Amino acid sequence: MTAVAPGALDGAVLVIGCGLIGTSVGLALRDHQVDVALVDALPGNVEMAVSRGAGRPASDDEQPQLVVVAVPPAAVADVVADALARWSEAVVTDVTSVKSSLQRRVDQSPGADRFAGGHPMAGSERSGPMAASAQLFEGRPWAVTPGPSTRPDALDAVVDLALHVGAVPIIMDAADHDRAVALVSHVPQVMSSLTAARLNDAEGNHLALSGAGLRDTTRIAASDSALWMDILGTNASDVKAVLERVRDDLDRVIGALDGDADELQRVLESGRRGSALIPGKHGSQAASVDVVHVQVADRPGELSRLMADTGESGVNIEDLRLDHDLGRPVGLAEISVAVGVGDSLVEALTSRGWTAYR
Amino acid sequence: MTAVAPGALDGAVLVIGCGLIGTSVGLALRDHQVDVALVDALPGNVEMAVSRGAGRPASDDEQPQLVVVAVPPAAVADVVADALARWSEAVVTDVTSVKSSLQRRVDQSPGADRFAGGHPMAGSERSGPMAASAQLFEGRPWAVTPGPSTRPDALDAVVDLALHVGAVPIIMDAADHDRAVALVSHVPQVMSSLTAARLNDAEGNHLALSGAGLRDTTRIAASDSALWMDILGTNASDVKAVLERVRDDLDRVIGALDGDADELQRVLESGRRGSALIPGKHGSQAASVDVVHVQVADRPGELSRLMADTGESGVNIEDLRLDHDLGRPVGLAEISVAVGVGDSLVEALTSRGWTAYR
Repeated sequence: MTAVAPGALDGAVLVIGCGLIGTSVGLALRDHQVDVALVDALPGNVEMAVSRGAGRPASDDEQPQLVVVAVPPAAVADVVADALARWSEAVVTDVTSVKSSLQRRVDQSPGADRFAGGHPMAGSERSGPMAASAQLFEGRPWAVTPGPSTRPDALDAVVDLALHVGAVPIIMDAADHDRAVALVSHVPQVMSSLTAARLNDAEGNHLALSGAGLRDTTRIAASDSALWMDILGTNASDVKAVLERVRDDLDRVIGALDGDADELQRVLESGRRGSALIPGKHGSQAASVDVVHVQVADRPGELSRLMADTGESGVNIEDLRLDHDLGRPVGLAEISVAVGVGDSLVEALTSRGWTAYR
Repeated sequence: MTAVAPGALDGAVLVIGCGLIGTSVGLALRDHQVDVALVDALPGNVEMAVSRGAGRPASDDEQPQLVVVAVPPAAVADVVADALARWSEAVVTDVTSVKSSLQRRVDQSPGADRFAGGHPMAGSERSGPMAASAQLFEGRPWAVTPGPSTRPDALDAVVDLALHVGAVPIIMDAADHDRAVALVSHVPQVMSSLTAARLNDAEGNHLALSGAGLRDTTRIAASDSALWMDILGTNASDVKAVLERVRDDLDRVIGALDGDADELQRVLESGRRGSALIPGKHGSQAASVDVVHVQVADRPGELSRLMADTGESGVNIEDLRLDHDLGRPVGLAEISVAVGVGDSLVEALTSRGWTAYR
């Protein structure tokens, strides 16, 4: 995370590719009165993005200060090289989720010193300009990956872009980025798919025993396979390196199930330590919380009443999850609050008629 | 799931072991005026459970109708055998999370026809009688596992116990149960630990790119290692069988990263299909939902206002998650609603001043 304040984007920003990300960038920049020009291989996408208020159609003689390449991954390298050649003064960036291979291509292009890659860690289950939102990047990490020859002003311009759209710029080189996303995104995706794939073996009523842990670990397995084929293929060597270490641990666990308790404990403890490293609220290390469970009837207005009663007790909610129980017209809200205030929240809610417990 | 209505538990229920589960069973049964007698190796635990209202201390000449053995897993088999021998008219059940090995022990005991195992799929990050709650089992699955010689009236008594405490009894034999929990609970736990363990390899600021997917897949990796060592050890062969199939798929993925796209797609698609099999709301197959994102300031009362405005728009919330964004005093609420009403909720919330988008 960086403490850089947003600088000026006082020239035009040209967004190439009016999909979810490109159009969202346009919408967010327009909120700051930045001049945004839009182009897309499909003229209909430009029309839609313009109608959403994401900017104006690009003219034939644009002279952008910054070019944001937001085209599908397969086309990015060519479009970036073209942009660097065509606009010899402009800074160029992109938004794809794997950075090293692109950087290697750019390093061989004239103008590589005006390029810094980018990767907003934001997405949606939807795509296209109609799904775009000025708030898509709000508070989300935006990796900015300068190359070996990137000029400081080019890096600044891409950091400014991230800050303008409300994201948190995180500067790292392309190779670091790709190892990082292998670890925090690509491998967890594979692990979720591997876990969920086994559910196809379930017999009879076995899945009736499913609980929140299974739902959490397999949620992202529902993601689009084609998209992930592309991402995993592009970051294959970093993903493979992590998966090979996973396989080593998995072999240890399988072996340990025949009796070597120490090896099993080593892997479980390693997982505990690893999970504690994930940054939590406000970018701090994950803090422990008190979890309060409250029963909530499954009808409009009940959660509202619960939140009102929680607010009146003066407790701030760190996190909230709602699970619908199996076969009952009642849900279970899990309210996370600061350590030490769980019991008083239970008391406050119970006195207001809620069924609450820890 | 079964449609059995709760029958009578008109005799005394003896709960052996006044920890979280035993005391919660007592509290829930007392809500239905069932006579509950309590015993524990530690007299202090009985005192605490009695003070919570979970029942009365057992007398020396109890003649229970039903004995619920809720002692630590290592002691269960002996305590069940003792109970079957000592109370020759009583039905005996337990609450441990692995059933086959216990059933094999019971099958060699006199009185095996009066035993049916049980496994409430409920827990808490806390333990002991003070953490107990009459609502712990509300709406949760409670596996009931009759043995080969279990009498119908013994099975009925254990099903009645589950119904009385508000759980959803799911009847399966012990071997089925153990294969089911390997799939839906034990293997996801190992996968979560394996994923989280790799985070210990993270360099520098790499974990700053962490997102919701990583937090979901690694949440249960923070669980108590000693508890899981015990569970995985007791269900070793079923867990191992599933993990070996996971390893086959993992090998396929690692191999496919060198270029065999079809194999990679096969595993990802299998994961997608598997994740769709998990029962969702009200025990039905998981339904697709519209997800609406809303920015919520990080202060008491804001969620309350959001829930009130959502309620007024007449929309029922299927699920709700709250994520705090990195480095910002703002959280992002993810509200899941029925397919087709997402856009109108965005409109209703936007008109009330919220920053909402899909």
